[in-house]
Amino acid sequence: MLSESELDRVCVVLVRARNPSNIGAVARAMHDFGFSRLRVVNPYPVPLEAAKSAVDASAVMAAAMSCASVAEAVADCTLVVGTTAVGERDLQHELLHLPEAAARVRAELGKSVHGDESVMHGAPRRVALLFGSEKTGLSNEELSHCNWLLTVPMHQRAGERHVSMNLGQAAAVCLYELVRGAASVSESVTNRPVPLPSAAHAPPAEAPAAAAQLELINTLLAEVMQATEYTRRHAHNSSPAHIRRLVRRIGADAIDAPVWIGILKQILWKLGRNPED
Amino acid sequence: MLSESELDRVCVVLVRARNPSNIGAVARAMHDFGFSRLRVVNPYPVPLEAAKSAVDASAVMAAAMSCASVAEAVADCTLVVGTTAVGERDLQHELLHLPEAAARVRAELGKSVHGDESVMHGAPRRVALLFGSEKTGLSNEELSHCNWLLTVPMHQRAGERHVSMNLGQAAAVCLYELVRGAASVSESVTNRPVPLPSAAHAPPAEAPAAAAQLELINTLLAEVMQATEYTRRHAHNSSPAHIRRLVRRIGADAIDAPVWIGILKQILWKLGRNPED
Repeated sequence: MLSESELDRVCVVLVRARNPSNIGAVARAMHDFGFSRLRVVNPYPVPLEAAKSAVDASAVMAAAMSCASVAEAVADCTLVVGTTAVGERDLQHELLHLPEAAARVRAELGKSVHGDESVMHGAPRRVALLFGSEKTGLSNEELSHCNWLLTVPMHQRAGERHVSMNLGQAAAVCLYELVRGAASVSESVTNRPVPLPSAAHAPPAEAPAAAAQLELINTLLAEVMQATEYTRRHAHNSSPAHIRRLVRRIGADAIDAPVWIGILKQILWKLGRNPED
Repeated sequence: MLSESELDRVCVVLVRARNPSNIGAVARAMHDFGFSRLRVVNPYPVPLEAAKSAVDASAVMAAAMSCASVAEAVADCTLVVGTTAVGERDLQHELLHLPEAAARVRAELGKSVHGDESVMHGAPRRVALLFGSEKTGLSNEELSHCNWLLTVPMHQRAGERHVSMNLGQAAAVCLYELVRGAASVSESVTNRPVPLPSAAHAPPAEAPAAAAQLELINTLLAEVMQATEYTRRHAHNSSPAHIRRLVRRIGADAIDAPVWIGILKQILWKLGRNPED
Protein backbone atom coordinates (compact mmCIF):
# COMPACT_ATOMS: atom_id res chain seq x y z
CA MET A 1 0.00 0.00 0.00
CA LEU A 2 1.05 3.57 -0.51
CA SER A 3 1.61 5.60 2.65
CA GLU A 4 -1.11 8.00 3.79
CA SER A 5 1.11 10.88 2.69
CA GLU A 6 1.55 9.39 -0.77
CA LEU A 7 -2.16 8.67 -1.17
CA ASP A 8 -2.86 12.27 -0.18
CA ARG A 9 -0.60 13.64 -2.89
CA VAL A 10 -2.43 12.01 -5.80
CA CYS A 11 -5.11 14.18 -7.41
CA VAL A 12 -7.66 12.62 -9.71
CA VAL A 13 -8.81 15.24 -12.23
CA LEU A 14 -11.98 14.63 -14.25
CA VAL A 15 -12.21 16.89 -17.26
CA ARG A 16 -15.66 17.50 -18.77
CA ALA A 17 -17.18 14.33 -17.32
CA ARG A 18 -20.77 14.33 -18.57
CA ASN A 19 -22.45 11.75 -16.41
CA PRO A 20 -22.82 12.48 -12.67
CA SER A 21 -23.00 8.77 -11.91
CA ASN A 22 -19.58 8.34 -13.54
CA ILE A 23 -18.16 11.04 -11.29
CA GLY A 24 -19.67 9.17 -8.36
CA ALA A 25 -18.16 5.90 -9.58
CA VAL A 26 -14.70 7.48 -9.76
CA ALA A 27 -15.16 8.86 -6.23
CA ARG A 28 -16.13 5.41 -5.02
CA ALA A 29 -13.04 3.79 -6.56
CA MET A 30 -10.88 6.50 -4.96
CA HIS A 31 -12.46 5.76 -1.60
CA ASP A 32 -11.95 2.01 -2.05
CA PHE A 33 -8.23 2.38 -2.70
CA GLY A 34 -7.55 5.18 -0.18
CA PHE A 35 -7.36 8.27 -2.37
CA SER A 36 -9.20 11.45 -1.45
CA ARG A 37 -8.36 14.38 -3.75
CA LEU A 38 -10.89 14.66 -6.54
CA ARG A 39 -10.91 17.71 -8.80
CA VAL A 40 -13.57 18.25 -11.40
CA VAL A 41 -13.09 20.58 -14.35
CA ASN A 42 -16.33 21.58 -16.02
CA PRO A 43 -17.57 24.62 -17.85
CA TYR A 44 -20.81 24.31 -15.86
CA PRO A 45 -21.36 23.31 -12.22
CA VAL A 46 -24.19 20.79 -12.63
CA PRO A 47 -22.45 17.39 -12.76
CA LEU A 48 -20.49 17.85 -9.56
CA GLU A 49 -23.55 18.96 -7.57
CA ALA A 50 -25.63 16.09 -8.92
CA ALA A 51 -22.89 13.58 -8.16
CA LYS A 52 -22.49 14.88 -4.62
CA SER A 53 -26.05 13.97 -3.78
CA ALA A 54 -26.18 10.80 -5.86
CA VAL A 55 -23.57 8.49 -4.41
CA ASP A 56 -22.32 6.93 -1.24
CA ALA A 57 -18.61 7.71 -1.54
CA SER A 58 -19.58 10.76 0.46
CA ALA A 59 -16.23 11.74 1.98
CA VAL A 60 -14.45 11.92 -1.36
CA MET A 61 -17.39 13.62 -3.12
CA ALA A 62 -17.91 16.11 -0.31
CA ALA A 63 -14.28 17.17 -0.53
CA ALA A 64 -14.29 17.32 -4.34
CA MET A 65 -13.00 20.57 -5.76
CA SER A 66 -14.56 22.28 -8.72
CA CYS A 67 -11.99 23.93 -10.99
CA ALA A 68 -12.50 26.39 -13.82
CA SER A 69 -9.67 25.01 -15.94
CA VAL A 70 -7.20 22.17 -16.24
CA ALA A 71 -4.44 24.66 -15.44
CA GLU A 72 -6.09 25.47 -12.10
CA ALA A 73 -6.72 21.79 -11.31
CA VAL A 74 -3.07 20.82 -11.77
CA ALA A 75 -1.44 24.02 -10.54
CA ASP A 76 0.20 22.46 -7.46
CA CYS A 77 1.28 19.25 -9.16
CA THR A 78 4.84 18.41 -10.20
CA LEU A 79 3.77 15.57 -12.48
CA VAL A 80 0.67 15.62 -14.70
CA VAL A 81 -0.30 12.31 -16.30
CA GLY A 82 -3.05 12.01 -18.90
CA THR A 83 -5.02 8.85 -19.61
CA THR A 84 -5.91 7.89 -23.15
CA ALA A 85 -7.16 5.07 -25.31
CA VAL A 86 -4.44 4.32 -27.83
CA GLY A 87 -5.20 5.19 -31.40
CA GLU A 88 -7.58 7.98 -30.50
CA ARG A 89 -5.38 10.60 -32.07
CA ASP A 90 -1.95 11.45 -33.24
CA LEU A 91 -0.10 11.46 -29.94
CA GLN A 92 2.67 13.96 -29.36
CA HIS A 93 3.45 12.56 -25.92
CA GLU A 94 5.37 9.65 -24.57
CA LEU A 95 2.88 6.85 -23.92
CA LEU A 96 3.31 4.21 -21.19
CA HIS A 97 1.32 1.10 -20.40
CA LEU A 98 -0.38 1.26 -17.01
CA PRO A 99 1.99 -0.98 -14.99
CA GLU A 100 5.06 1.01 -16.03
CA ALA A 101 3.22 4.31 -15.67
CA ALA A 102 2.14 3.46 -12.12
CA ALA A 103 5.73 2.63 -11.17
CA ARG A 104 6.80 6.07 -12.40
CA VAL A 105 4.04 7.80 -10.46
CA ARG A 106 5.06 5.97 -7.29
CA ALA A 107 8.67 6.99 -7.88
CA GLU A 108 7.56 10.62 -8.12
CA LEU A 109 5.52 10.35 -4.91
CA GLY A 110 8.38 8.61 -3.12
CA LYS A 111 10.91 11.28 -4.02
CA SER A 112 9.47 14.08 -1.97
CA VAL A 113 9.51 11.90 1.11
CA HIS A 114 12.79 10.07 0.64
CA GLY A 115 14.87 12.07 -1.79
CA ASP A 116 17.23 14.68 -0.45
CA GLU A 117 16.76 17.03 -3.39
CA SER A 118 13.14 17.61 -2.45
CA VAL A 119 14.17 18.61 1.07
CA MET A 120 16.53 21.06 -0.52
CA HIS A 121 13.77 22.61 -2.58
CA GLY A 122 11.17 22.19 0.11
CA ALA A 123 8.18 21.33 -2.10
CA PRO A 124 6.18 18.13 -1.74
CA ARG A 125 5.61 16.26 -4.98
CA ARG A 126 2.04 15.99 -6.15
CA VAL A 127 0.77 13.96 -9.06
CA ALA A 128 -2.34 14.69 -11.13
CA LEU A 129 -4.05 11.88 -13.01
CA LEU A 130 -6.29 13.29 -15.75
CA PHE A 131 -9.34 11.55 -17.21
CA GLY A 132 -11.19 13.08 -20.15
CA SER A 133 -14.86 13.08 -21.04
CA GLU A 134 -16.64 9.78 -21.62
CA LYS A 135 -17.26 10.58 -25.24
CA THR A 136 -14.12 12.25 -26.51
CA GLY A 137 -11.39 11.64 -23.93
CA LEU A 138 -8.88 14.45 -23.39
CA SER A 139 -8.63 17.11 -26.08
CA ASN A 140 -5.28 18.12 -27.53
CA GLU A 141 -5.43 21.28 -25.47
CA GLU A 142 -6.04 19.27 -22.31
CA LEU A 143 -3.31 16.77 -23.22
CA SER A 144 -0.89 19.65 -23.59
CA HIS A 145 -0.94 20.05 -19.79
CA CYS A 146 0.43 16.51 -19.38
CA ASN A 147 4.04 15.43 -18.96
CA TRP A 148 3.24 12.03 -20.48
CA LEU A 149 0.31 9.69 -21.06
CA LEU A 150 -0.77 6.30 -19.83
CA THR A 151 -3.07 3.75 -21.39
CA VAL A 152 -4.71 0.61 -20.03
CA PRO A 153 -3.72 -2.26 -22.35
CA MET A 154 -6.90 -3.69 -23.87
CA HIS A 155 -7.78 -6.57 -26.13
CA GLN A 156 -7.49 -5.90 -29.85
CA ARG A 157 -10.00 -7.59 -32.13
CA ALA A 158 -9.45 -7.68 -35.85
CA GLY A 159 -11.58 -5.19 -37.75
CA GLU A 160 -13.11 -3.67 -34.64
CA ARG A 161 -13.35 0.03 -34.06
CA HIS A 162 -11.38 0.90 -30.96
CA VAL A 163 -13.54 1.11 -27.84
CA SER A 164 -12.44 3.03 -24.78
CA MET A 165 -13.11 1.94 -21.21
CA ASN A 166 -15.96 3.11 -19.05
CA LEU A 167 -14.77 6.10 -16.97
CA GLY A 168 -15.45 4.59 -13.55
CA GLN A 169 -13.85 1.31 -14.52
CA ALA A 170 -10.79 2.97 -16.04
CA ALA A 171 -10.27 4.96 -12.83
CA ALA A 172 -10.70 1.83 -10.69
CA VAL A 173 -8.12 -0.09 -12.73
CA CYS A 174 -5.61 2.80 -12.68
CA LEU A 175 -5.93 3.38 -8.93
CA TYR A 176 -5.76 -0.35 -8.24
CA GLU A 177 -2.49 -0.54 -10.19
CA LEU A 178 -1.05 2.44 -8.29
CA VAL A 179 -1.75 0.76 -4.95
CA ARG A 180 -1.00 -2.78 -6.15
CA GLY A 181 2.59 -2.18 -7.09
CA ALA A 182 3.37 -0.44 -3.84
CA ALA A 183 2.52 -3.64 -1.97
CA SER A 184 5.54 -5.38 -3.42
CA VAL A 185 8.70 -4.77 -1.42
CA SER A 186 11.03 -5.27 -4.36
CA GLU A 187 9.11 -2.82 -6.52
CA SER A 188 8.93 -0.11 -3.89
CA VAL A 189 12.67 -0.43 -3.39
CA THR A 190 13.44 -0.02 -7.06
CA ASN A 191 10.92 2.76 -7.55
CA ARG A 192 12.28 4.93 -4.80
CA PRO A 193 15.54 6.68 -5.38
CA VAL A 194 18.33 5.80 -3.02
CA PRO A 195 18.82 8.79 -0.66
CA LEU A 196 21.95 10.63 -1.62
CA PRO A 197 24.73 11.02 0.95
CA SER A 198 24.56 14.81 0.92
CA ALA A 199 22.19 17.40 -0.47
CA ALA A 200 25.11 19.05 -2.19
CA HIS A 201 25.40 16.03 -4.46
CA ALA A 202 21.76 15.97 -5.47
CA PRO A 203 21.35 16.99 -9.10
CA PRO A 204 19.05 20.00 -8.98
CA ALA A 205 17.68 19.22 -12.44
CA GLU A 206 15.62 16.37 -10.92
CA ALA A 207 13.29 18.67 -8.99
CA PRO A 208 10.50 19.53 -11.39
CA ALA A 209 8.76 22.86 -11.51
CA ALA A 210 5.17 22.94 -10.28
CA ALA A 211 2.60 23.11 -13.04
CA ALA A 212 1.62 26.60 -11.90
CA GLN A 213 5.10 27.85 -12.72
CA LEU A 214 5.03 26.20 -16.12
CA GLU A 215 1.63 27.73 -16.76
CA LEU A 216 3.05 31.14 -15.94
CA ILE A 217 5.82 30.50 -18.45
CA ASN A 218 3.16 29.50 -20.99
CA THR A 219 1.26 32.72 -20.38
CA LEU A 220 4.30 34.90 -20.59
CA LEU A 221 5.53 33.13 -23.71
CA ALA A 222 2.13 33.59 -25.35
CA GLU A 223 2.26 37.27 -24.53
CA VAL A 224 5.72 37.46 -25.99
CA MET A 225 4.62 35.68 -29.15
CA GLN A 226 1.70 38.01 -29.42
CA ALA A 227 3.72 41.10 -28.75
CA THR A 228 6.35 40.10 -31.29
CA GLU A 229 3.68 39.28 -33.88
CA TYR A 230 4.99 35.77 -34.15
CA THR A 231 1.42 34.75 -33.50
CA ARG A 232 0.14 36.65 -36.50
CA ARG A 233 2.73 35.25 -38.88
CA HIS A 234 2.77 31.66 -37.62
CA ALA A 235 -0.77 31.14 -36.43
CA HIS A 236 -0.53 27.33 -36.83
CA ASN A 237 2.24 27.20 -34.21
CA SER A 238 0.64 29.57 -31.75
CA SER A 239 -2.28 27.79 -30.15
CA PRO A 240 -2.14 27.42 -26.35
CA ALA A 241 -1.60 23.69 -26.87
CA HIS A 242 1.40 24.30 -29.10
CA ILE A 243 2.87 26.67 -26.60
CA ARG A 244 2.44 24.24 -23.72
CA ARG A 245 4.15 21.49 -25.63
CA LEU A 246 6.94 23.88 -26.39
CA VAL A 247 7.35 24.82 -22.75
CA ARG A 248 7.12 21.25 -21.56
CA ARG A 249 9.97 20.27 -23.85
CA ILE A 250 12.20 22.82 -22.18
CA GLY A 251 12.05 20.47 -19.22
CA ALA A 252 12.08 23.41 -16.85
CA ASP A 253 12.80 22.38 -13.29
CA ALA A 254 12.34 24.24 -10.00
CA ILE A 255 15.54 26.19 -10.50
CA ASP A 256 15.18 26.89 -14.21
CA ALA A 257 11.54 27.92 -14.15
CA PRO A 258 12.04 31.24 -12.34
CA VAL A 259 14.84 31.99 -14.76
CA TRP A 260 12.57 31.45 -17.73
CA ILE A 261 9.90 33.53 -16.09
CA GLY A 262 12.39 36.30 -15.49
CA ILE A 263 13.60 36.23 -19.08
CA LEU A 264 10.08 36.36 -20.49
CA LYS A 265 9.05 39.18 -18.18
CA GLN A 266 12.13 41.05 -19.21
CA ILE A 267 11.22 40.66 -22.87
CA LEU A 268 7.71 41.92 -22.23
CA TRP A 269 9.01 44.87 -20.26
CA LYS A 270 11.33 45.68 -23.14
CA LEU A 271 8.39 45.52 -25.54
CA GLY A 272 6.55 48.04 -23.44
CA ARG A 273 4.12 45.52 -21.96
CA ASN A 274 3.50 45.20 -18.29
CA PRO A 275 3.18 41.51 -17.40
CA GLU A 276 0.52 41.17 -14.73
CA ASP A 277 2.36 38.59 -12.69
CA MET B 1 -1.98 -11.18 -22.86
CA LEU B 2 -3.75 -14.49 -22.40
CA SER B 3 -4.15 -16.58 -25.55
CA GLU B 4 -7.53 -16.61 -27.32
CA SER B 5 -8.06 -20.15 -26.04
CA GLU B 6 -7.34 -19.10 -22.46
CA LEU B 7 -9.61 -16.05 -22.68
CA ASP B 8 -12.34 -18.30 -24.03
CA ARG B 9 -12.11 -20.65 -21.06
CA VAL B 10 -12.85 -18.02 -18.41
CA CYS B 11 -16.52 -17.71 -17.46
CA VAL B 12 -17.71 -14.69 -15.53
CA VAL B 13 -20.73 -15.67 -13.45
CA LEU B 14 -22.97 -12.96 -12.00
CA VAL B 15 -25.18 -14.26 -9.23
CA ARG B 16 -28.33 -12.30 -8.40
CA ALA B 17 -27.06 -9.04 -9.88
CA ARG B 18 -29.86 -6.56 -9.29
CA ASN B 19 -28.94 -3.67 -11.53
CA PRO B 20 -29.05 -4.19 -15.31
CA SER B 21 -26.55 -1.39 -15.81
CA ASN B 22 -24.09 -3.27 -13.59
CA ILE B 23 -24.49 -6.36 -15.73
CA GLY B 24 -23.82 -4.17 -18.75
CA ALA B 25 -20.74 -2.69 -17.06
CA VAL B 26 -19.34 -6.16 -16.39
CA ALA B 27 -19.96 -7.12 -20.02
CA ARG B 28 -18.15 -4.00 -21.14
CA ALA B 29 -15.11 -4.77 -18.97
CA MET B 30 -15.09 -8.33 -20.35
CA HIS B 31 -15.14 -6.96 -23.87
CA ASP B 32 -12.33 -4.50 -23.09
CA PHE B 33 -10.02 -7.22 -21.83
CA GLY B 34 -10.97 -9.91 -24.37
CA PHE B 35 -13.29 -12.19 -22.40
CA SER B 36 -16.59 -13.36 -23.86
CA ARG B 37 -18.35 -15.93 -21.65
CA LEU B 38 -20.85 -14.25 -19.37
CA ARG B 39 -23.31 -16.32 -17.36
CA VAL B 40 -26.05 -14.76 -15.31
CA VAL B 41 -27.79 -16.61 -12.49
CA ASN B 42 -31.07 -15.03 -11.47
CA PRO B 43 -34.34 -16.32 -10.15
CA TYR B 44 -36.10 -14.05 -12.63
CA PRO B 45 -35.18 -13.21 -16.25
CA VAL B 46 -35.64 -9.42 -16.17
CA PRO B 47 -32.12 -8.07 -15.48
CA LEU B 48 -30.45 -9.91 -18.31
CA GLU B 49 -33.05 -8.83 -20.86
CA ALA B 50 -32.85 -5.22 -19.70
CA ALA B 51 -29.04 -5.28 -19.80
CA LYS B 52 -29.02 -6.72 -23.31
CA SER B 53 -30.83 -3.72 -24.66
CA ALA B 54 -29.15 -1.16 -22.43
CA VAL B 55 -25.46 -1.30 -23.24
CA ASP B 56 -22.99 -1.20 -26.03
CA ALA B 57 -20.88 -4.25 -25.16
CA SER B 58 -23.25 -5.98 -27.49
CA ALA B 59 -21.26 -9.06 -28.48
CA VAL B 60 -20.68 -10.18 -24.89
CA MET B 61 -24.22 -9.34 -23.79
CA ALA B 62 -25.79 -11.01 -26.81
CA ALA B 63 -23.93 -14.22 -26.04
CA ALA B 64 -24.69 -14.08 -22.30
CA MET B 65 -26.20 -17.26 -20.90
CA SER B 66 -28.98 -17.25 -18.38
CA CYS B 67 -28.64 -20.06 -15.82
CA ALA B 68 -31.16 -21.33 -13.30
CA SER B 69 -28.57 -22.07 -10.64
CA VAL B 70 -24.93 -21.60 -9.69
CA ALA B 71 -24.47 -25.35 -10.16
CA GLU B 72 -25.63 -25.07 -13.78
CA ALA B 73 -23.47 -22.00 -14.42
CA VAL B 74 -20.26 -23.68 -13.26
CA ALA B 75 -21.01 -27.23 -14.40
CA ASP B 76 -18.27 -27.39 -17.05
CA CYS B 77 -15.61 -25.62 -14.94
CA THR B 78 -12.67 -27.31 -13.26
CA LEU B 79 -11.94 -24.34 -11.00
CA VAL B 80 -14.59 -22.14 -9.37
CA VAL B 81 -13.36 -18.94 -7.74
CA GLY B 82 -15.60 -16.70 -5.64
CA THR B 83 -15.03 -13.00 -5.09
CA THR B 84 -15.66 -11.45 -1.69
CA ALA B 85 -15.05 -8.37 0.39
CA VAL B 86 -13.00 -9.46 3.39
CA GLY B 87 -14.76 -9.32 6.73
CA GLU B 88 -18.19 -9.88 5.25
CA ARG B 89 -18.64 -13.19 6.98
CA ASP B 90 -16.92 -16.03 8.69
CA LEU B 91 -15.04 -17.50 5.77
CA GLN B 92 -14.61 -21.23 5.52
CA HIS B 93 -12.52 -20.98 2.36
CA GLU B 94 -8.95 -20.21 1.57
CA LEU B 95 -8.75 -16.53 0.67
CA LEU B 96 -6.20 -15.04 -1.75
CA HIS B 97 -5.41 -11.46 -2.67
CA LEU B 98 -6.14 -10.68 -6.31
CA PRO B 99 -2.57 -10.76 -7.72
CA GLU B 100 -1.88 -14.23 -6.26
CA ALA B 101 -5.36 -15.44 -7.19
CA ALA B 102 -4.94 -14.34 -10.81
CA ALA B 103 -1.63 -16.20 -11.04
CA ARG B 104 -3.37 -19.37 -9.87
CA VAL B 105 -6.18 -18.93 -12.39
CA ARG B 106 -3.65 -18.48 -15.20
CA ALA B 107 -1.85 -21.61 -14.05
CA GLU B 108 -5.13 -23.54 -14.28
CA LEU B 109 -5.84 -22.18 -17.76
CA GLY B 110 -2.29 -22.94 -18.87
CA LYS B 111 -2.42 -26.54 -17.74
CA SER B 112 -4.98 -27.78 -20.20
CA VAL B 113 -2.95 -26.45 -23.06
CA HIS B 114 0.56 -27.27 -21.90
CA GLY B 115 0.31 -30.00 -19.28
CA ASP B 116 0.50 -33.60 -20.40
CA GLU B 117 -1.95 -34.82 -17.79
CA SER B 118 -4.81 -32.90 -19.37
CA VAL B 119 -4.11 -34.52 -22.71
CA MET B 120 -4.35 -37.81 -20.94
CA HIS B 121 -7.73 -36.95 -19.51
CA GLY B 122 -8.86 -35.06 -22.57
CA ALA B 123 -10.79 -32.29 -20.83
CA PRO B 124 -10.03 -28.59 -21.31
CA ARG B 125 -9.75 -26.60 -18.09
CA ARG B 126 -12.35 -23.93 -17.56
CA VAL B 127 -12.42 -21.38 -14.77
CA ALA B 128 -15.52 -19.69 -13.35
CA LEU B 129 -15.20 -16.34 -11.61
CA LEU B 130 -18.25 -15.69 -9.42
CA PHE B 131 -19.52 -12.26 -8.40
CA GLY B 132 -22.40 -11.94 -5.94
CA SER B 133 -25.22 -9.44 -5.72
CA GLU B 134 -24.36 -5.75 -5.25
CA LYS B 135 -25.98 -5.66 -1.83
CA THR B 136 -25.07 -8.93 -0.17
CA GLY B 137 -22.25 -10.49 -2.16
CA LEU B 138 -22.23 -14.27 -2.46
CA SER B 139 -24.29 -16.23 0.06
CA ASN B 140 -22.82 -19.11 2.00
CA GLU B 141 -24.69 -21.50 -0.24
CA GLU B 142 -23.22 -19.82 -3.33
CA LEU B 143 -19.73 -19.74 -1.80
CA SER B 144 -19.97 -23.46 -1.18
CA HIS B 145 -19.62 -24.00 -4.95
CA CYS B 146 -16.21 -22.31 -4.87
CA ASN B 147 -12.80 -23.96 -4.58
CA TRP B 148 -11.36 -20.83 -2.99
CA LEU B 149 -12.00 -17.09 -2.79
CA LEU B 150 -10.29 -13.95 -3.94
CA THR B 151 -10.51 -10.42 -2.65
CA VAL B 152 -9.34 -7.10 -4.07
CA PRO B 153 -7.12 -5.47 -1.40
CA MET B 154 -8.71 -2.19 -0.36
CA HIS B 155 -7.81 0.70 1.90
CA GLN B 156 -8.72 0.25 5.56
CA ARG B 157 -9.82 3.34 7.45
CA ALA B 158 -10.01 3.29 11.24
CA GLY B 159 -13.55 3.03 12.53
CA GLU B 160 -15.12 2.71 9.12
CA ARG B 161 -17.67 0.08 8.24
CA HIS B 162 -16.31 -2.06 5.48
CA VAL B 163 -17.42 -0.97 2.00
CA SER B 164 -17.37 -3.35 -0.93
CA MET B 165 -16.51 -2.36 -4.47
CA ASN B 166 -18.96 -1.46 -7.19
CA LEU B 167 -19.73 -4.61 -9.21
CA GLY B 168 -18.63 -3.27 -12.58
CA GLN B 169 -15.42 -1.85 -11.13
CA ALA B 170 -14.60 -5.03 -9.21
CA ALA B 171 -15.01 -7.07 -12.41
CA ALA B 172 -12.84 -4.61 -14.37
CA VAL B 173 -10.05 -4.79 -11.78
CA CYS B 174 -10.16 -8.61 -11.58
CA LEU B 175 -10.14 -9.08 -15.36
CA TYR B 176 -7.38 -6.48 -15.75
CA GLU B 177 -5.24 -8.40 -13.26
CA LEU B 178 -5.87 -11.70 -15.07
CA VAL B 179 -4.65 -10.21 -18.35
CA ARG B 180 -1.96 -8.02 -16.80
CA GLY B 181 0.04 -10.83 -15.27
CA ALA B 182 0.02 -12.86 -18.43
CA ALA B 183 1.88 -10.06 -20.19
CA SER B 184 4.97 -10.67 -18.08
CA VAL B 185 7.23 -13.34 -19.51
CA SER B 186 8.69 -14.36 -16.17
CA GLU B 187 5.26 -14.78 -14.60
CA SER B 188 3.83 -16.82 -17.44
CA VAL B 189 6.84 -19.11 -17.25
CA THR B 190 6.44 -19.74 -13.54
CA ASN B 191 2.67 -20.08 -13.75
CA ARG B 192 2.69 -22.75 -16.38
CA PRO B 193 3.80 -26.20 -15.41
CA VAL B 194 6.82 -27.53 -17.22
CA PRO B 195 5.61 -30.21 -19.65
CA LEU B 196 6.52 -33.58 -18.27
CA PRO B 197 8.71 -35.89 -20.38
CA SER B 198 6.06 -38.59 -20.61
CA ALA B 199 2.35 -38.83 -19.82
CA ALA B 200 3.11 -41.86 -17.72
CA HIS B 201 4.93 -39.63 -15.24
CA ALA B 202 2.15 -37.07 -14.90
CA PRO B 203 0.52 -37.28 -11.47
CA PRO B 204 -3.14 -38.00 -12.25
CA ALA B 205 -4.20 -36.28 -9.02
CA GLU B 206 -3.54 -32.89 -10.68
CA ALA B 207 -6.46 -33.18 -13.11
CA PRO B 208 -9.46 -31.83 -11.24
CA ALA B 209 -12.98 -33.11 -11.66
CA ALA B 210 -15.42 -30.86 -13.47
CA ALA B 211 -17.88 -29.10 -11.20
CA ALA B 212 -20.72 -31.14 -12.71
CA GLN B 213 -19.13 -34.32 -11.40
CA LEU B 214 -18.64 -32.81 -7.96
CA GLU B 215 -22.25 -31.67 -8.01
CA LEU B 216 -23.32 -35.21 -8.80
CA ILE B 217 -21.29 -36.40 -5.82
CA ASN B 218 -23.01 -33.76 -3.70
CA THR B 219 -26.43 -34.93 -4.83
CA LEU B 220 -25.67 -38.57 -4.26
CA LEU B 221 -24.11 -37.87 -0.88
CA ALA B 222 -27.16 -35.86 0.15
CA GLU B 223 -29.37 -38.76 -0.88
CA VAL B 224 -27.19 -41.08 1.10
CA MET B 225 -27.34 -38.86 4.17
CA GLN B 226 -31.06 -38.64 3.79
CA ALA B 227 -31.50 -42.35 3.28
CA THR B 228 -29.33 -43.18 6.25
CA GLU B 229 -31.15 -40.66 8.46
CA TYR B 230 -27.91 -38.88 9.15
CA THR B 231 -29.77 -35.80 7.99
CA ARG B 232 -32.46 -36.20 10.63
CA ARG B 233 -30.02 -36.73 13.49
CA HIS B 234 -27.40 -34.14 12.47
CA ALA B 235 -29.47 -31.49 10.74
CA HIS B 236 -26.84 -28.79 11.43
CA ASN B 237 -24.31 -30.67 9.28
CA SER B 238 -26.66 -31.50 6.46
CA SER B 239 -27.36 -28.32 4.54
CA PRO B 240 -26.40 -28.36 0.84
CA ALA B 241 -23.64 -25.89 1.66
CA HIS B 242 -22.18 -28.19 4.31
CA ILE B 243 -22.27 -31.10 1.95
CA ARG B 244 -20.54 -29.19 -0.81
CA ARG B 245 -17.76 -28.11 1.53
CA LEU B 246 -17.40 -31.70 2.58
CA VAL B 247 -17.13 -32.91 -0.99
CA ARG B 248 -14.76 -30.14 -1.96
CA ARG B 249 -12.38 -31.14 0.82
CA ILE B 250 -12.16 -34.64 -0.61
CA GLY B 251 -10.23 -32.99 -3.39
CA ALA B 252 -11.79 -35.36 -5.92
CA ASP B 253 -9.97 -35.33 -9.25
CA ALA B 254 -11.01 -36.60 -12.66
CA ILE B 255 -10.02 -40.13 -11.76
CA ASP B 256 -11.38 -40.16 -8.20
CA ALA B 257 -14.71 -38.54 -8.97
CA PRO B 258 -16.24 -41.46 -10.88
CA VAL B 259 -15.09 -43.72 -8.10
CA TRP B 260 -16.90 -41.61 -5.49
CA ILE B 261 -19.94 -41.51 -7.69
CA GLY B 262 -19.85 -45.27 -8.04
CA ILE B 263 -19.52 -45.80 -4.31
CA LEU B 264 -22.41 -43.48 -3.52
CA LYS B 265 -24.65 -45.04 -6.15
CA GLN B 266 -23.82 -48.42 -4.77
CA ILE B 267 -24.80 -47.30 -1.28
CA LEU B 268 -28.11 -45.96 -2.55
CA TRP B 269 -28.77 -49.15 -4.47
CA LYS B 270 -28.07 -51.12 -1.32
CA LEU B 271 -30.50 -48.90 0.57
CA GLY B 272 -33.19 -49.70 -1.94
CA ARG B 273 -33.07 -46.28 -3.63
CA ASN B 274 -32.70 -45.81 -7.33
CA PRO B 275 -30.36 -42.88 -7.98
CA GLU B 276 -31.66 -41.01 -11.01
CA ASP B 277 -28.30 -40.49 -12.61
